[in-house]
Amino acid sequence: MDITNILIKEKTEQAVKILRETGLDCWITFTRESEICGDPSLVFLAPGQVTWHSAFIIAASGQKRAIVGLYDKKAIEDTGAYEAVEGYVTGIKEPLQKFLQQLQPRKIGLNYSRTSEICDGLTYGMYLTLFDILKEIGLETRLESAEKIVSALRERKSPVEIQAIKRAIATTEEIFERVRLFISPGKSEKEIAQFMLDELKKKGLQTAWGQSTCPAVFTGPDTAQAHYSPTDRRAEPGHILNMDFGVRVDGYCSDMQRTFYLLSQGESQAPPEVRHGFETIVRAIEEARAAMRPGIQGVKIDEVARRIITAAGYDQFPHALGHQVGRFAHDGTALLGPAWEKYADKPFRTLEPGMVFTLEPRLTVPERGVVTIEEMVVVTDSGAEYLSRPQKELWLIG
Amino acid sequence: MDITNILIKEKTEQAVKILRETGLDCWITFTRESEICGDPSLVFLAPGQVTWHSAFIIAASGQKRAIVGLYDKKAIEDTGAYEAVEGYVTGIKEPLQKFLQQLQPRKIGLNYSRTSEICDGLTYGMYLTLFDILKEIGLETRLESAEKIVSALRERKSPVEIQAIKRAIATTEEIFERVRLFISPGKSEKEIAQFMLDELKKKGLQTAWGQSTCPAVFTGPDTAQAHYSPTDRRAEPGHILNMDFGVRVDGYCSDMQRTFYLLSQGESQAPPEVRHGFETIVRAIEEARAAMRPGIQGVKIDEVARRIITAAGYDQFPHALGHQVGRFAHDGTALLGPAWEKYADKPFRTLEPGMVFTLEPRLTVPERGVVTIEEMVVVTDSGAEYLSRPQKELWLIG
Repeated sequence: MDITNILIKEKTEQAVKILRETGLDCWITFTRESEICGDPSLVFLAPGQVTWHSAFIIAASGQKRAIVGLYDKKAIEDTGAYEAVEGYVTGIKEPLQKFLQQLQPRKIGLNYSRTSEICDGLTYGMYLTLFDILKEIGLETRLESAEKIVSALRERKSPVEIQAIKRAIATTEEIFERVRLFISPGKSEKEIAQFMLDELKKKGLQTAWGQSTCPAVFTGPDTAQAHYSPTDRRAEPGHILNMDFGVRVDGYCSDMQRTFYLLSQGESQAPPEVRHGFETIVRAIEEARAAMRPGIQGVKIDEVARRIITAAGYDQFPHALGHQVGRFAHDGTALLGPAWEKYADKPFRTLEPGMVFTLEPRLTVPERGVVTIEEMVVVTDSGAEYLSRPQKELWLIG
Repeated sequence: MDITNILIKEKTEQAVKILRETGLDCWITFTRESEICGDPSLVFLAPGQVTWHSAFIIAASGQKRAIVGLYDKKAIEDTGAYEAVEGYVTGIKEPLQKFLQQLQPRKIGLNYSRTSEICDGLTYGMYLTLFDILKEIGLETRLESAEKIVSALRERKSPVEIQAIKRAIATTEEIFERVRLFISPGKSEKEIAQFMLDELKKKGLQTAWGQSTCPAVFTGPDTAQAHYSPTDRRAEPGHILNMDFGVRVDGYCSDMQRTFYLLSQGESQAPPEVRHGFETIVRAIEEARAAMRPGIQGVKIDEVARRIITAAGYDQFPHALGHQVGRFAHDGTALLGPAWEKYADKPFRTLEPGMVFTLEPRLTVPERGVVTIEEMVVVTDSGAEYLSRPQKELWLIG
């Protein structure tokens, strides 16, 4: 059995257990044409895309049912995760109503959330369609957000999931080691990024997010800072170079950053202001990791790192300290972030064992560039452990 | 300027014109973490993904404004499509309210639709968020579906878009020609699919949909019919083999099917029942194409082909005759389909010049396999033209 179907069985069984914690009677993922605008929960429920209106229903009773277009039936049946997969030809309404009338759930969880994009896969048009279908059988008042289920399902990583993430990290670190030998003064951001993509291609793997910014490579001062494609700007002695890169292995991602310094003539180490910046970042990451443990809010961890950066005389970074990683580079709901509007209540969620986070503070060294390291850690029963091999030394070039 | 930014300028300008036809004052695309659950309209508005809550506002007055997270700002500014791109740090509410208070739209179009998945990119959680933001400034009663804008924007293809689709078709046809020489009795569906993917890889291109079913290859009777991964089943003399394949070039897709027959010993042509099936499919496609013209409903075209198939003694195919193609293999709202629940009112939309459709009837020849051809056509001012080189002869192997 391939890893896709192993994971689907594992995660649908985990969903039943989580449902029982939440007090919901069933969880419905309702989606269509998933290639176009799919629900991010679908990867835990089906081995590929679905075409027509599709409902994946998991009940606290342990029942698991999929109702999908006829042509999508067989691949879903093959997962072995459902006791029945119904394939319809003309429309989903009748089989869906029939099944729910038998089930008679008092509380139905749906994939919508103001806070958490990963739990917000139900489109508004699909919500309206489902509402109408349920209204005809008197169940339309029983709808709630399934955010707790979807968050926990993504966040509580199984050993199979952690192993996949470790493989993604190992590949990323290997490519960092290779590009370290490739970088030299005069090489452009584009050339450096292309080298890394070529290395990845040799392995037959994909990037963790869109190739236009994966890797992202920034050299020197006055770059676009982040989320921008590599440019023709060339690495120069005396400048800091940083990169953000992640790969996907068996559906799971890494997301990491590393910082380099290009020595000027006569230098054998980076100048004091660059070293000071680098050491501040290393310290912020290590102290944040040391503060992590189940039950603590993400905002507290963000605070630890943010305070170290500002106390050392730098501006605070304009983003969260760290996000979860999983099927996507940005995954999960709980966030190591400040209490800013755009993060809603994510920073106030508490950490749980099995959550995988990045730690990625950032600061600017004037005239030199941006220092930023991104490590990956997993929350354990009593603290947090590095999944990546942390960068403790500035990587010197030249 | 690369093709991505040319298209964004072209499509945002087209959106202003379409807005004026619809009577809406502005169109808002409101999305976040587009890597996870993005709005399919985003490709027409931004050159890559967005991370935080992002609003793309196009007004009938001609104003075009984007309000996005700070790190996403520069790449969107570079498109040259917006007169202003605002980058925020803590939250979108304030800049979005401020802009809309100035604009004072009476009717605001949002991306939701019961009928059309391609127009349904707004998630329910994001709808609730936007509703709350608008309520504070008294605009929450002015929301409507932007389905007409989004449909027309996707469906009325510009010459630049048609050219990209033609390049995708040409590549697909080239790979069909190659695999025609590769197929022989004893080759498995998986081997045949891998050959095609290797050919595509040499060109550095991607498939039009997920690789697990692109290409889909089916040989002989008793296959999973469609939407299923290639298996270890081997091509055998006396069987029909069909395949479904599409590629993506410069963001635009092809989607095509071809049918082969493996000659048995002593045969110099396919047996009469296979030829009859093949000729019926060819005729259904050609007569459907000949009936296409602006103003006619899709359901009428589906009827032409469906009637030919059933009149020839075959079961009707359990899907639409044809869908639109564009950024996705399944794109657009108007459909050449029957009046079935799952298609909602898509089959009743009328054809317009610039729409690109597949024509893909299907029938089963007992004991032999499935005959299915999928051609691509574009609606012109007075009819419809093939974009693909139609398969008129059964491709014989052996």
